[in-house]
Amino acid sequence: MFTFISVLALSALPSCLSIWPIPRSLDSANQVLKLSNSFDITVNITDAPQDLLDAVSRTKNSIQTDQLGRLVLGRGASDSDALVTAETFPGLILVLEESAPAAQPIATEAVAALGTRDESYSLSVPSDGSAGVMSANTTLGLLRGLSTFEQLWYTYNGTIYTTYAPMTIINDSPAYVYRGFMLDTARNFFPVSDIKRTLDTMYLVKINTLHLHITDAQSWPIQLPDFPELAQAGAYSVSQSFTLDDIQDVTTYAAERGIDVLMEIDTPGHTSIIGASHPDYVACYIGNWQIFASEPPSGQLRLADPAVMNFTAEVLSAVAKTLPSTMFSTGGDEVNTACYAADEPTQKMLNETGMTLFDALDEFTAVTHGALHDLGKTTVVWEEMVLEFNVTTLRNDTIVMVWISSDDAAAVVQQGYRIVHAPSNYFYLDCGGGEFYGNDPTGNSWCDPFKTWQEAYTFDPLANITSDQVHLVLGGEQLLWTEQSGPQNLDPITWPRAAVSAEIFWTGETLPDGFDRVGNISDALLRLHDVRYRMVQRGVNAINLQPEWCALRPHFCDL
Amino acid sequence: MFTFISVLALSALPSCLSIWPIPRSLDSANQVLKLSNSFDITVNITDAPQDLLDAVSRTKNSIQTDQLGRLVLGRGASDSDALVTAETFPGLILVLEESAPAAQPIATEAVAALGTRDESYSLSVPSDGSAGVMSANTTLGLLRGLSTFEQLWYTYNGTIYTTYAPMTIINDSPAYVYRGFMLDTARNFFPVSDIKRTLDTMYLVKINTLHLHITDAQSWPIQLPDFPELAQAGAYSVSQSFTLDDIQDVTTYAAERGIDVLMEIDTPGHTSIIGASHPDYVACYIGNWQIFASEPPSGQLRLADPAVMNFTAEVLSAVAKTLPSTMFSTGGDEVNTACYAADEPTQKMLNETGMTLFDALDEFTAVTHGALHDLGKTTVVWEEMVLEFNVTTLRNDTIVMVWISSDDAAAVVQQGYRIVHAPSNYFYLDCGGGEFYGNDPTGNSWCDPFKTWQEAYTFDPLANITSDQVHLVLGGEQLLWTEQSGPQNLDPITWPRAAVSAEIFWTGETLPDGFDRVGNISDALLRLHDVRYRMVQRGVNAINLQPEWCALRPHFCDL
Repeated sequence: MFTFISVLALSALPSCLSIWPIPRSLDSANQVLKLSNSFDITVNITDAPQDLLDAVSRTKNSIQTDQLGRLVLGRGASDSDALVTAETFPGLILVLEESAPAAQPIATEAVAALGTRDESYSLSVPSDGSAGVMSANTTLGLLRGLSTFEQLWYTYNGTIYTTYAPMTIINDSPAYVYRGFMLDTARNFFPVSDIKRTLDTMYLVKINTLHLHITDAQSWPIQLPDFPELAQAGAYSVSQSFTLDDIQDVTTYAAERGIDVLMEIDTPGHTSIIGASHPDYVACYIGNWQIFASEPPSGQLRLADPAVMNFTAEVLSAVAKTLPSTMFSTGGDEVNTACYAADEPTQKMLNETGMTLFDALDEFTAVTHGALHDLGKTTVVWEEMVLEFNVTTLRNDTIVMVWISSDDAAAVVQQGYRIVHAPSNYFYLDCGGGEFYGNDPTGNSWCDPFKTWQEAYTFDPLANITSDQVHLVLGGEQLLWTEQSGPQNLDPITWPRAAVSAEIFWTGETLPDGFDRVGNISDALLRLHDVRYRMVQRGVNAINLQPEWCALRPHFCDL
Repeated sequence: MFTFISVLALSALPSCLSIWPIPRSLDSANQVLKLSNSFDITVNITDAPQDLLDAVSRTKNSIQTDQLGRLVLGRGASDSDALVTAETFPGLILVLEESAPAAQPIATEAVAALGTRDESYSLSVPSDGSAGVMSANTTLGLLRGLSTFEQLWYTYNGTIYTTYAPMTIINDSPAYVYRGFMLDTARNFFPVSDIKRTLDTMYLVKINTLHLHITDAQSWPIQLPDFPELAQAGAYSVSQSFTLDDIQDVTTYAAERGIDVLMEIDTPGHTSIIGASHPDYVACYIGNWQIFASEPPSGQLRLADPAVMNFTAEVLSAVAKTLPSTMFSTGGDEVNTACYAADEPTQKMLNETGMTLFDALDEFTAVTHGALHDLGKTTVVWEEMVLEFNVTTLRNDTIVMVWISSDDAAAVVQQGYRIVHAPSNYFYLDCGGGEFYGNDPTGNSWCDPFKTWQEAYTFDPLANITSDQVHLVLGGEQLLWTEQSGPQNLDPITWPRAAVSAEIFWTGETLPDGFDRVGNISDALLRLHDVRYRMVQRGVNAINLQPEWCALRPHFCDL
């Protein structure tokens, strides 16, 4: 039971408290509590699914192996005295709420339709030597609670302890249903092992969607049994491509960690590589990219050709049918009209049918989306499909990714579509690294400057959104386009920055103590340091945000 | 013998030739030559020093283990036919020139005074089945030749081969004597293993100086037996500090790879951390950094205090006396005069002696540099010591690092000092990553934008330098300041970009075929890709410069 008196007994959010994202409901104090040598996590759930038991095992292992020293001078040495007399925490008990339905596997709940998932959980960590309790309506909620619980523990001189006891979290739940990270595996390839390490880190900060931009103009890294020629001609190499088993492996690994995989096969633009095996299907194949594409190589599907429409629908279906997610993205960004204007076969077909290019795009979208709808998928597109091409055949439940500018969100919502924020001016992790053209000595990044974590943190998901439109804002994601990235810099360019949107869209605008989240950015840094140092302990090459001198001295390096 | 006829028989520089830095003298063709299964490198040198034999072993090992596929479509598959009939390369013979003095260890030659080293070598790789020969006047020259030789070899389907045969290099030697890389181990710490991996990569591209900016305001990561309090109070932790044995280990490892270590202990600014153990020696210790320092924390040595002068001289000597290099840097950048103006002890001492602050800096420099000169060291300083403070006690042979702007080089040379180019506007690897202050949502990097490899490559070492001043330009270096870097991103932020200055200062302005180096930047990219992919094969997380699609298709991604 949680009484008014117990609330008063607990202090407000201690400035040193380090959980990322910060729970929306949280009361904690600053007593030291040692983890018992016989600490265990007990799952008091009838027929608990195996993936919950596995998650519990991972959490127990992380608590033992994180070995993170507190980010204070001496890294915990000052806790020595308190540890001598500290109470011991014997264990944590996981339960489902009495009213909860029968336990489902996490992997099942993680891929349910957006808006139907219950990620909420409650957690008590008493400081009187009794066991803690975590409860939720779902195994997915319990998983979210575990990622909170893992972050309470530090190690000094072999002792594992927290300084946040007692702690009570009641019904912590996300402000937004979609919290994502996008990875482009086409400009440069990323093996499954890199993706899994990324999924582990996404789990830690409660990101629930991996948006996998798997193909692009440069490569086709999916081996499809029905279309083997695509990868044979289009993957950088066999070892730089995914089998459907690999993708199954990734989606299963993700789902067990509470993460849905939103697969994207970008069409009709960004498809030059299809021309390597199907030259008849691609317009302006490796033509003058400065006219026909946003970057080399040029090449777009001949969208007015019924054969191409059907081929595309079949390819999308061949991938989509293997995936558990209810969502699938057909992309739709940066369709180049000059390419189609210059493409004789396309112009011939338009002339013969009397269609405009826009009519053809409507038809192309109807056919390709129709195939996905037949598989029960909700389709996802980039903003141009709505704002630039005004595609009339989009279903009302289409999810639209806003990327060109955060300013475009309102216009998409205005048309009644649900949106995911992916604004280049806040969330593009690759910006600021210069241009990649070989002979351009002074070329800066098109989306300069570098998006610092601080800049991203100030993003307002509801800017220019009216109260009756709020339900259309599903959430957001940070994105890694990989023209100048690969496995070599995946971790440092992504982490901890990609955790910023995780807090924006989990915690929302208000901290648990009632203060404004964005207004307390210099407190956020303390927590972001903490989770970054924890990532490093887990073998993730998350970048330093400051000199360690600053990380150990809260606010000494503020302006 | 090298005859006019053989020159004609060899084609001009093939565009696919990939050696970084490109030799200044080079004739090669495009015959395929297989490495014999019994390939060996024979050292035909009397009393060959062990470190040369070790270098030869490493080269043989690299050639076997690089397993680099050629950066062409199919990664070498198109060479299959030629490999069937290709001649076999039996081995390489290393000799010293007849006129050469007795062989010295590489480690001895690598740390000789600048201007006295001979790094030149000649190499022939015949395509008629006979052995190659590499000759030089010194073991250091042979080492440079080995780093060229290693880059000739690719692997396809288990066969190691080159496509550049026959090749003749005559007296390839560097255009500039100083080719460096600077690492800051004070803002964030880097363990010896990271430094060694960096040294291995520096060797590959013939960088001959590691400038180790080892201390700064934030931490003192050197354990000095005579001054144990400095690291005890000033290192981030014991495990985040170097013993003198560690430093010996690094300098030996470096020297064996042809690399001199220029140690820098920055004074009198950038010394706040000394205040942690010697509060009486430091002015404005952790004061208002926005007034008293360029970044947190503030704190500068009380340079007018004779006790501080002597203490500083002793500390510098304690480090310098353990080092083989003939150079030592005392830093001298960003001395903040407002700090001294507000510091009562400093003002009192100036008043008592009648000295100005500049007089005191002259005296401080005379004492600290004097101690280093007594140890036989040539002193190195940042440009402000000359351009801002006009320190009168600098010895004429002082080496000045130009960092604030490339435009400042001419003014320093004008005063007769030798310079090393380290310009923030071309060579700072950290620029473009935003500011690190915790509460500054829109703070961009002070030295935006990101310094792309292309931008760095256009640097002109002789801009505004007259022909009679050219001898004062020693060379240059790219630099990694580490406020937002650590072991986690060392490789991708450094490589391959830091190889750019290696070519600028080895190859100079002119390619071996007589064409302008900078004017052929898009050919340089092909070679930079090649050495970058080779680095990755060696376990270095060098960043992608382009999508792999571009890396495999020369010039397809040019503007």
